[in-house]
Amino acid sequence: MGTKGKVIKCKAAIAWEADKPLCIEEVEVAPPKAHEVRVQIIATSVCHSDAHILHPQFKKALFPVILGHEGAGIVESVGPGVTEFKPGDKVIPLYTPQCKKCKFCLSPVTNFCAKLSQFKNPAVGQELMEDRTSRFTCKGKPVYHFMGTSTFSQYTVVSETNLAKIDDDANLQRVCLLGCGFSTGYGAAINVAKVTPGSTCAVFGLGGVGLSAVIGCKVSGASRIIAVDINNGKFAKAKALGATDCLNPRDLPKPTQEVIIEMTNGGVDFAFDCAGGSEAMKAALDCTTVGWGLCTLIGVAAGDKGLTISPVELIMGRTINGTIFGGWKGKDSIPKLVTDYKNKKFDLDILVTHTLSFDKINEAFDLMYQGKSIRTILTF
Amino acid sequence: MGTKGKVIKCKAAIAWEADKPLCIEEVEVAPPKAHEVRVQIIATSVCHSDAHILHPQFKKALFPVILGHEGAGIVESVGPGVTEFKPGDKVIPLYTPQCKKCKFCLSPVTNFCAKLSQFKNPAVGQELMEDRTSRFTCKGKPVYHFMGTSTFSQYTVVSETNLAKIDDDANLQRVCLLGCGFSTGYGAAINVAKVTPGSTCAVFGLGGVGLSAVIGCKVSGASRIIAVDINNGKFAKAKALGATDCLNPRDLPKPTQEVIIEMTNGGVDFAFDCAGGSEAMKAALDCTTVGWGLCTLIGVAAGDKGLTISPVELIMGRTINGTIFGGWKGKDSIPKLVTDYKNKKFDLDILVTHTLSFDKINEAFDLMYQGKSIRTILTF
Repeated sequence: MGTKGKVIKCKAAIAWEADKPLCIEEVEVAPPKAHEVRVQIIATSVCHSDAHILHPQFKKALFPVILGHEGAGIVESVGPGVTEFKPGDKVIPLYTPQCKKCKFCLSPVTNFCAKLSQFKNPAVGQELMEDRTSRFTCKGKPVYHFMGTSTFSQYTVVSETNLAKIDDDANLQRVCLLGCGFSTGYGAAINVAKVTPGSTCAVFGLGGVGLSAVIGCKVSGASRIIAVDINNGKFAKAKALGATDCLNPRDLPKPTQEVIIEMTNGGVDFAFDCAGGSEAMKAALDCTTVGWGLCTLIGVAAGDKGLTISPVELIMGRTINGTIFGGWKGKDSIPKLVTDYKNKKFDLDILVTHTLSFDKINEAFDLMYQGKSIRTILTF
Repeated sequence: MGTKGKVIKCKAAIAWEADKPLCIEEVEVAPPKAHEVRVQIIATSVCHSDAHILHPQFKKALFPVILGHEGAGIVESVGPGVTEFKPGDKVIPLYTPQCKKCKFCLSPVTNFCAKLSQFKNPAVGQELMEDRTSRFTCKGKPVYHFMGTSTFSQYTVVSETNLAKIDDDANLQRVCLLGCGFSTGYGAAINVAKVTPGSTCAVFGLGGVGLSAVIGCKVSGASRIIAVDINNGKFAKAKALGATDCLNPRDLPKPTQEVIIEMTNGGVDFAFDCAGGSEAMKAALDCTTVGWGLCTLIGVAAGDKGLTISPVELIMGRTINGTIFGGWKGKDSIPKLVTDYKNKKFDLDILVTHTLSFDKINEAFDLMYQGKSIRTILTF
């Protein structure tokens, strides 16, 4: 007898309140309703967006909640009406859905989906299923979903719009990174900035997203990639991935943007802010060349005060844009990225600094807070 | 005997200090030096950028100065080395030079020129000729140039890089508007935003630049053009030029961006801020659709506090850019715009609300401050 149609009891990491470690608990996961899929998570990693929700400044978080949005797994069962997935399929949950019906999904220029448009910040939305109920219960209490994915649970339920089917031979302990960090940074360079061969680039913040942006710049043929972080420990990896120069703002005698402008005789063609925070965003904008400089914002810092720009900075010919999930339409693109990884178009392995059992999830958060990890893979 | 090689005494409007009316004075205009051209100005109009310099909040202004950057005239004489112009040529002075040699001029994607790159704000630069001296003297004192053009003088001297030759049969009392306002707004829609047929647009601020942006949206085939101003007196003209809806923020029960989002079922494809100021810029950004909304900043308000953006607004798929002089490379494009005007591709006449003799220049400023004029043409 399978588990289809039944409540599954399994392990999950619950965030009961802000600013506290997660608790490994036994949870009940209800069967998928119509157009939903229940997925057994095989591997998940930890991203700063998970940490934001736990940050006390982040007022909008709802508790208790099961976080996690960078995972990979196997379909356990499907609800009524689901034809795209069947039990046993390897899948990656998508926090950026692709309904394939809305005006955004029908347009080639965006990966936005109308299912997100009700949320001012999609990163805190999708906290319930479409019927406004949860599939998770712990100690008799309903538990919120997170970003439509909740991968910090051995089993999760997602909408069929929030799931991409991938190759049967995909290594889930690596391609789970395609669920957020890698795709976001790599896609920012490839799809959103459209980095051109021979161009100059600067990447601020060398976490998983920033290093993946470095990979994207390198794959796009950039001639110079200036990598910036306040942690010198990130530079070896950045150089291995293609960075030509590494700068630590704390070691510089003047603002980073001024140093980059001098190094590049007027500023870079493309800058990426993968750090978040007013100072990094400002530096990223200011270090781009007049005439055609493009600054792509990716990072969102907790308690961020935003970026204040003068129109004068832009009338000189600069552009600012941003990206969610690297501009990829998830269902269409994630399977192709899995293939690209298999064909060694890019390296995911180098981003994995630690592999731990799921029970040690708080250790994974600590490694991230301390800047000691790029990505920690958690396995069940 | 001609005037070539001699100092010319003529009439000019001098700004002796901030926040005071201009004074019509007799000035001496020295002959052009190497690679310079002396131009007899036939018609000039008044633009808000001239007024900014007079604003006491605008700390960087240098006095005394001859303002004016929207003019048209006839070459009086040329300095050594000038081959592109000859006496008698009809010309339009360019505050955005085109040297045709720098990396920006050699690139098709920008109208920026390296000659501007030394200035943090090009609108206050070019206050002297390239040899760091002035060609103007009044009452024994040297008088600063302005934006490389200084069209508020019967004769002015400009660099050969800051001048476009136009057709001999051009009507200087109309095509002087191509020197700034019309080209900036029209080009913002055509070149910078690249408004697409069938798209929805919003234009904030219906002065000369904003109405020209409306013209650009209409010529580009926009299906809906929402024109916004706090002065209802601007709406008849906006409608005549193609606006489909006119909104006065002071008459609305809620923020303009919310009204526009409702009117357009989610926001416009393209927004233009031609007003300047934090509030208008914010409304222009916020009224664009998630997914692909583009906000183009054109206006620069005196004492402006800038636009504060959260990366969350951009990661939903919005872009912000800006433009100086509508993205036109002046020498290449202004002659073509003169032809387009002759062929009635667009209407300049409707922008001209008043024609006055040059001596009444302060009246032209007052009409602008009071919102009673779109453009006042001053003739010598």
